[in-house]
Amino acid sequence: MTSDYKTQKGQEFDRGAFESLLKRKVFLWQSFEPYGAVKGLFDYGPPLETLEAEVINIWRDHFIRSEKMMALKCSMLTPYEVLKTSGHVDKFADYMCKDPKTGEILRSDHLIKEVIESRLSSDKEARGEKVEVVDDPKKKKKASKVAKTAVKLEDAKRTEYEHMLATLDDCTGDDMGALIKKHDIRNPGSGNEVEPPVAVNLMFQTQIGATGKEPAFLRPETAQGQFLSFPKLLEYSDGQLPFASASIGYSFRNELSPRSGLLRVREFLMAEVEHFVDPESGKRHPKFHLVKDVKLPLLSRKTQNDGGSQTTTITIGEAVETKLVDNETLGYFLVRIMLFMQKIGIDMTKLRFRQHMQNEMAHYAADCWDCELQSSYGWIECVGCADRSAYDLSVHMKATGVPLMVREPLKEPYRVEEWTAGLDKKRSGPKFKKDAGKVQSALDALTQDMREKLSISMEKEGKVSVDVPDVEGGKVELEKDLVSFQKESRMETMREYIPNVIEPSFGIGRILYSLMEHVYWTREGDAARSVMSFKPTVAPVKVLVVPLQKDARFASLLSQLEQRLDDDALSFRVDQSGVSIGKRYSRNDELGIPFGITVDYQSLEDNSFTLRDRDSTKQVRASLDQILEAVGKMCRGKETWAEVSKKLPAFEGKEERDE
Amino acid sequence: MTSDYKTQKGQEFDRGAFESLLKRKVFLWQSFEPYGAVKGLFDYGPPLETLEAEVINIWRDHFIRSEKMMALKCSMLTPYEVLKTSGHVDKFADYMCKDPKTGEILRSDHLIKEVIESRLSSDKEARGEKVEVVDDPKKKKKASKVAKTAVKLEDAKRTEYEHMLATLDDCTGDDMGALIKKHDIRNPGSGNEVEPPVAVNLMFQTQIGATGKEPAFLRPETAQGQFLSFPKLLEYSDGQLPFASASIGYSFRNELSPRSGLLRVREFLMAEVEHFVDPESGKRHPKFHLVKDVKLPLLSRKTQNDGGSQTTTITIGEAVETKLVDNETLGYFLVRIMLFMQKIGIDMTKLRFRQHMQNEMAHYAADCWDCELQSSYGWIECVGCADRSAYDLSVHMKATGVPLMVREPLKEPYRVEEWTAGLDKKRSGPKFKKDAGKVQSALDALTQDMREKLSISMEKEGKVSVDVPDVEGGKVELEKDLVSFQKESRMETMREYIPNVIEPSFGIGRILYSLMEHVYWTREGDAARSVMSFKPTVAPVKVLVVPLQKDARFASLLSQLEQRLDDDALSFRVDQSGVSIGKRYSRNDELGIPFGITVDYQSLEDNSFTLRDRDSTKQVRASLDQILEAVGKMCRGKETWAEVSKKLPAFEGKEERDE
Repeated sequence: MTSDYKTQKGQEFDRGAFESLLKRKVFLWQSFEPYGAVKGLFDYGPPLETLEAEVINIWRDHFIRSEKMMALKCSMLTPYEVLKTSGHVDKFADYMCKDPKTGEILRSDHLIKEVIESRLSSDKEARGEKVEVVDDPKKKKKASKVAKTAVKLEDAKRTEYEHMLATLDDCTGDDMGALIKKHDIRNPGSGNEVEPPVAVNLMFQTQIGATGKEPAFLRPETAQGQFLSFPKLLEYSDGQLPFASASIGYSFRNELSPRSGLLRVREFLMAEVEHFVDPESGKRHPKFHLVKDVKLPLLSRKTQNDGGSQTTTITIGEAVETKLVDNETLGYFLVRIMLFMQKIGIDMTKLRFRQHMQNEMAHYAADCWDCELQSSYGWIECVGCADRSAYDLSVHMKATGVPLMVREPLKEPYRVEEWTAGLDKKRSGPKFKKDAGKVQSALDALTQDMREKLSISMEKEGKVSVDVPDVEGGKVELEKDLVSFQKESRMETMREYIPNVIEPSFGIGRILYSLMEHVYWTREGDAARSVMSFKPTVAPVKVLVVPLQKDARFASLLSQLEQRLDDDALSFRVDQSGVSIGKRYSRNDELGIPFGITVDYQSLEDNSFTLRDRDSTKQVRASLDQILEAVGKMCRGKETWAEVSKKLPAFEGKEERDE
Repeated sequence: MTSDYKTQKGQEFDRGAFESLLKRKVFLWQSFEPYGAVKGLFDYGPPLETLEAEVINIWRDHFIRSEKMMALKCSMLTPYEVLKTSGHVDKFADYMCKDPKTGEILRSDHLIKEVIESRLSSDKEARGEKVEVVDDPKKKKKASKVAKTAVKLEDAKRTEYEHMLATLDDCTGDDMGALIKKHDIRNPGSGNEVEPPVAVNLMFQTQIGATGKEPAFLRPETAQGQFLSFPKLLEYSDGQLPFASASIGYSFRNELSPRSGLLRVREFLMAEVEHFVDPESGKRHPKFHLVKDVKLPLLSRKTQNDGGSQTTTITIGEAVETKLVDNETLGYFLVRIMLFMQKIGIDMTKLRFRQHMQNEMAHYAADCWDCELQSSYGWIECVGCADRSAYDLSVHMKATGVPLMVREPLKEPYRVEEWTAGLDKKRSGPKFKKDAGKVQSALDALTQDMREKLSISMEKEGKVSVDVPDVEGGKVELEKDLVSFQKESRMETMREYIPNVIEPSFGIGRILYSLMEHVYWTREGDAARSVMSFKPTVAPVKVLVVPLQKDARFASLLSQLEQRLDDDALSFRVDQSGVSIGKRYSRNDELGIPFGITVDYQSLEDNSFTLRDRDSTKQVRASLDQILEAVGKMCRGKETWAEVSKKLPAFEGKEERDE
């Protein structure tokens, strides 16, 4: 439901008008339009491409530079084996139902949701209840096609349907198959019955080389490359944990029926951090004390279990102390994520941290919080912050035999007593021939307990029987002269462990989309005059230059001004068109240009210019030096308009009159 | 041949030592090492990832901001139809030979080159001539395996072989097949005969969605997305040409046997500009006068045809005037490319512009110059700067019917006289029925000449015969009452044209690799002390902080220093290890950190620090404020060490003594 979503000024948010602005100012569009456009793929035009670059630069500074993370760039093309080990080949899938008559492929959960929601809506209508407004006109149309006349449901049925929708996310493919059958759920487009749900993998498959022997995928996340780089990271950081890697790169997801614009796409930019930490450190963070008093809006698992959606705003210190947030490192990152969002201009009243429900998390995860941003589509996960434990390093180590772990000297070496199981090589070789290696491996794999037991058997019976996979009979008999079991004592000086990983993972496209909704509003009394209030630090274009009118006398002053803006590396746009200054400002407010510099007749006399603030439309008048210094500082986030307008003399512009 | 390649200090370049540095300092490595690594895919570690980000930021500033280009981000996944139209499905291929016994796939040109080079080398040995040193030890080994004993060739054969190598690039697949047969060229690894060359497409294929109806590729260049965005660009620039779009993004090439490290990879970052210009403007550039006196090292087509490789250094003004460089726009970009290379620290003595030979260019290209950088692999194309004429927009327009062109009012409308050919709809409908449309199309397609001729025939014979494809008999007869040919006169007020495109296309990975070779050198008298002299503006880490020794008294001063560096957004690394200051500087010189700040006992007394310049190892001593100001300016490219060392008092450090 989107009806409660408001602009930053408390206005009704009109998604149609907003989307029309994005289109008009070429922020984005569906890719390959001349060829009919492809769903789930988007091109960014100049304003959005530049916004993304600014946001990424802030991300780099806020995380990589300031937290001393190790930046990595790993390949997108990823061999089959890597993603088989990580679990993506088997589990990165959606359930789909095929309409056997039309050949359409429908996502099972979407299908159930759409049909059941439509029946519930029809029931409400029949009962004379108010039907919730559906924002999306297409959806409305489609829904009305399905339920032409209002049909009242039995009370029990209605309750059952509501419960179904609430628990749909927990359903397996079989569960959904049963629901579809039981409730006669059909393809709403054709009215046909559908085939049972089938898992369809969501990775794009391809192959490396021409031999057909190197199947590969486009990565579904940047994380795996970072895990496989662990030995390099350990080397670069001189073996000292904790440390973090960070990667800004593209991932891919072959959505079968993409929806919701930029929120669910097939090709997307992620910024992922993998913070590696010694699990025995209690996952403490050295800089936690610096942030412990920062307050965060938290929506706990417990609140959600109780059916609530109210956030509690408490300090991260308290949240970690009460174990609401599992550990300091996780807590530290939640704060850093929030500060990043604030820096780029996210509306802090539209941000919350939601804890994952137990069934939402991967089986290995210790705790997980999403940073959600509110938009007209509801609350959307924009950053996931999960504790992945030692899972990924462990499985890759097991699959490859490469030690993805830390080996460090023990501060206090200790004595260990161990049972050894040694094969006499001279005798076992001739006896077992090609199986000798297998016998040795089987002995190496014996537990301490088992070795002790075998030593007792050997004492008693002069021989033992050991399970050896892959030899005939599955076991071998070993006599006293072939193997010896001995208790030995040695000093343990090294410690080996697999680090745990805390992973903040940012979906950049979703953040950009939410940001665009958050900064959008319209001037009071004129809904047609919309504004994109990008912070000067991220605004795609920093300055609008407007000569009062077309007059050749302005030319030299204009080119001088342009040169100075260039020297200061400030991006600008010149609007010399014939319309009024007010109109020119107004249409560039839609691009979110924060500052305007007017060149007028007084400029010709005293070389002074007016500087206009986009959000307040207030103006000051000053020398070029003063104006450029102020603009430069504001664009670097070192000064605000409030400060500038106190220092420089106000100017009563003609903007409003002009329109 | 690499033997004439020298470091910037004129030293022999030792690629082995250089590669060992890159590995030791984790600049890069082959991707997925724990799984055996994949050829042609590389991961970037912290130094190279950050270097890339710095270089990209300079590129953005130098091209996008300062030239007011329209930044675009287009999808990598690209539908089949788009690349069918662009010609990539049919022509983006290499010829391969299969070894039928081992299943190996060999690139035909590589195979021929390797075998013939080995025969020539063996011949030289047999003649007692000096055999050129092959730098790559693997290659040497392989070559020696093939030619175990030196075999002398007949003189004519030798000449034939040398000619073959020189003209190999011009061979078609059939040509190469003939050469392989004639000269009994076999797989050097197995000694087997190989199958004839087959064209293998070099794009990675995949599919969008699950239906199998949307075959797609990973794009082989970013250009196509930019061409398809032409209507948006035209809108954003208010219909005013010339304008340019720019895109920084990944492209893919499924190399079948990747070689040469970063120079030939399967996944690579490109920065491409598409500059759209009215062909009738003479391709003039409004800013050409600003650069016309800049001198460029040019290697012309003529020089190459004459067998030379000597560059001529002349001003771009002269080059365009003499038509050596086809037009101002192309010339302007060549200058901007060179200035960019200079900005990031490319050695200007290792840069040249080479004009494409006629047979190197695409058939539609008007002129093409490569910016080549010299490395130990020879002269490598790093930027291509081509005039693609109107080719791409034309083919996409033809394939989709979407008008990828400019329509603008004529300054001077003119009168045109035209023959019209009108079908009488009332009568032709009943007569031709479903074929009526085809008849109309055939009439529309008639040339002016033909219409005039037909009007004369009609006068004479009262009927005409017109070719109509797809109707029975392939032609229809039209009588006077069905069609009329008339000469009419009207005013033409609009002009329509398809813009021409000048395309500078940067291979970022190749530029980064060349840059790393260019900045690498070793301290005089100590080849083990290598230095990466990255410019401060691009250096991955800006400052090295070294306390004189481990001493708790330094702690507070250190954290104060770190805070100040953070406040100034200067990236830094602290080296507190126990070795001497000299050693610590020396090992961080390999990372290319331009500045070092030492904290010593005098710092405790007067809060002064020493600042060390990596390249000269000279030091100055000053207050923290002075040092940070100097470092900040040098890292923004606003000041040089020469200037700083004049302002701040010199300090005689102990660095050399310490080692």
